[in-house]
Amino acid sequence: MRPQDLIRKKRDREELTPSEIAFFVQGVTNNHFADYQASALLMAIFLNGMSEAEQQALTEEFLRSGEALNLSDIPKRKVDKHSTGGVGDKTSLIVAPLAAATGLCVPMISGRGLSHTGGTLDKLEAIPGFRVHLSLAEFRSILERTGCAIMGQTAEIAPADKKLYALRDVTATVESIPLIAASIMSKKLAEGLDGLVLDIKTGDGAFMKRMRDARRLAQTLVQIGERAGVRTVALITDMDQPLGLAVGNALEVIECCETLRGRGPQDLTRLSVELTAQMLLADGASDQMSEARKHVRDLLQSGAGLQKFRELIEAQGGDSRVVDDYTLMPQAAHREALTSERGGYIASVAAEIIGTASMLLGAGRVRVEDRIDPAVGLVLNKKIGDQVHEGEPLLFIHYNSDERLGEVNGMLRDAFHITSHKPKVARLVKAKVS
Amino acid sequence: MRPQDLIRKKRDREELTPSEIAFFVQGVTNNHFADYQASALLMAIFLNGMSEAEQQALTEEFLRSGEALNLSDIPKRKVDKHSTGGVGDKTSLIVAPLAAATGLCVPMISGRGLSHTGGTLDKLEAIPGFRVHLSLAEFRSILERTGCAIMGQTAEIAPADKKLYALRDVTATVESIPLIAASIMSKKLAEGLDGLVLDIKTGDGAFMKRMRDARRLAQTLVQIGERAGVRTVALITDMDQPLGLAVGNALEVIECCETLRGRGPQDLTRLSVELTAQMLLADGASDQMSEARKHVRDLLQSGAGLQKFRELIEAQGGDSRVVDDYTLMPQAAHREALTSERGGYIASVAAEIIGTASMLLGAGRVRVEDRIDPAVGLVLNKKIGDQVHEGEPLLFIHYNSDERLGEVNGMLRDAFHITSHKPKVARLVKAKVS
Repeated sequence: MRPQDLIRKKRDREELTPSEIAFFVQGVTNNHFADYQASALLMAIFLNGMSEAEQQALTEEFLRSGEALNLSDIPKRKVDKHSTGGVGDKTSLIVAPLAAATGLCVPMISGRGLSHTGGTLDKLEAIPGFRVHLSLAEFRSILERTGCAIMGQTAEIAPADKKLYALRDVTATVESIPLIAASIMSKKLAEGLDGLVLDIKTGDGAFMKRMRDARRLAQTLVQIGERAGVRTVALITDMDQPLGLAVGNALEVIECCETLRGRGPQDLTRLSVELTAQMLLADGASDQMSEARKHVRDLLQSGAGLQKFRELIEAQGGDSRVVDDYTLMPQAAHREALTSERGGYIASVAAEIIGTASMLLGAGRVRVEDRIDPAVGLVLNKKIGDQVHEGEPLLFIHYNSDERLGEVNGMLRDAFHITSHKPKVARLVKAKVS
Repeated sequence: MRPQDLIRKKRDREELTPSEIAFFVQGVTNNHFADYQASALLMAIFLNGMSEAEQQALTEEFLRSGEALNLSDIPKRKVDKHSTGGVGDKTSLIVAPLAAATGLCVPMISGRGLSHTGGTLDKLEAIPGFRVHLSLAEFRSILERTGCAIMGQTAEIAPADKKLYALRDVTATVESIPLIAASIMSKKLAEGLDGLVLDIKTGDGAFMKRMRDARRLAQTLVQIGERAGVRTVALITDMDQPLGLAVGNALEVIECCETLRGRGPQDLTRLSVELTAQMLLADGASDQMSEARKHVRDLLQSGAGLQKFRELIEAQGGDSRVVDDYTLMPQAAHREALTSERGGYIASVAAEIIGTASMLLGAGRVRVEDRIDPAVGLVLNKKIGDQVHEGEPLLFIHYNSDERLGEVNGMLRDAFHITSHKPKVARLVKAKVS
């Protein structure tokens, strides 16, 4: 078998066999497949797609290229939640402790912010002392003690995917559903899960702008999960405006604490409860959605989720006092309001612009080598459907340097669309795929 | 501009601008475009195609990546003939001296055999002493003296194409009309031509098996030539059976001498005359096809073409006595007839099998590093439409080692299809594109 023969098959829209896909993925690791051959095949996959069987084989080979967790000696059901990324999407920090509080084990391997979207690891690192780089042994030990742990991807997990992702990034082959799906699912399958809940974001601030693409990705991910024996359900949720009010790392951690106290923004609370309830359902622990939701809401109200969050922070080396004293979190030197130039109703809040503005302030990375400023970000004062008066704040800008403030101000003003009549608010959960 | 932005455009079927194509081709040479980025773009071009303008820009940038001949100080019209390659396709050795005998200047840069097809350079090297590796200065000096010269591609000509061709070979991106066209035409445009006649082979023994693909390639090549100011015409000709009777390097040189004596096989003679006449027409030297044909036939009969061939051989260091004494050419130790098992009419002679069998005997290269045996090959005794009796030879095998004789014998028998009624013979020249 030669690399070019495989490339030719995919180029000509023929289906690759599982052993050919194994040859490809192993070849990427052992260098029998040169980078220039891998990238030609990636482009052929991008343009010609993959069958279900190819998709499954690719995911399994990514998984097999590295190590997988075996958590079978932990006597709990192992369930994770994964989101495709959005602006103000901070549910992981709420859902992981909440689900752990219900008695689930949540082994969460997360990522960093990508372009205009935030990353769970960056948010957690805003908490003084919090360590996201754990060995697999530490991760397991925290899971046993706490019931949840959140860490970054290690070199041992799906190394073939890691290598190919770097190649995709520089060859314009990122936005391919089969490649995205294999990349996500190989890492999730490495967690040794019984169940998985996916939050597929769609809309202006998501990578999948169109509902059609989001649905295709959701279906593909669910298919892969189920075929690998993991109970998988996907919610397709709205990312036309930021989720919650806070965008920026420390600001989002504080909003998570508020939500775990039962006083968070309505959309963030609703989605966090919904995702956690789905984790319980996917788990088989509860067969009635309304019952599951009520159970999760009780744990919010009782403070059990917040207590679990304190334990998680402590277990990963962080200062858990921040949960009760927000002044211990990094704080920006300045806060400035962006006020409305007219009265009316908020018709749209462009999530991608909000995310990009927050990134430019320092909450995300423009270049890979940039350092994040955990304190900066934005806090919305108005969301879609809200009434606004002339001169009233639309949002607050938390910043440390006014270098980019002018640029950010102009962008942010364009992010709000104000109309004279009350608009219809989009549904938060648009569809469920299982 | 970043390589991935260009790749993304082509991936999404947007048209690349001339400056983007220049960035690509220059990037391949100066390494701003990594191999893995070039191969991703090549695959996107393969699958999404190229517009006329893109095609033109790609050819021009290939040309511009190296040196081009300036023959303007030679006071003759410069015209070349180029074939896309076939089995027994030896017209270059006949056409170059014939055209030179009409007073044209023929600066021919040729290639080697590829897979089952023969190469002009390999054929010429069967002549003892013949040198195909010339400097551009030597090439020019022979052209001035003789009116024709045939050499291999040098490192100075279209180096970007050379680098990309090596990459295409291992990434299954060879058979793409825009890429083939740019590769051929950049080298032809480097010859500083006034006119160009293309012989696009189609059928079993050609790279373009289907007439539709041959026509598309012909149209693309003619378009590029004309837009670059070179009078270009393409003939689409039959390659369902080998051209002439001889297949194998020394055997083909001898057949060329016979043809230049006016006693060659009918199809080879007809096509050589037709191509040379087209060179005269493309040149504007003659505006009547029948007149041009007659002129070329006269030069065959008078021996002027043969004399020019002697001069060419001599000028490039070869022993020109071979033209008059074929025993001075390399000769195989053994000759064996393949006889027909039944009587009837030859309905087909599979050119690809004949070419492959000849290659296996040693006339071509199975691997790049293989050395060619100039003496071996096949001489057909029957062609399509001929009557054959049981026990009569179909062809003669000239071989030096009987290692592969059994395998070759079996293949060759399968190459002939014999029917009881006389079949229709396909037209040699199927179409003209200009």
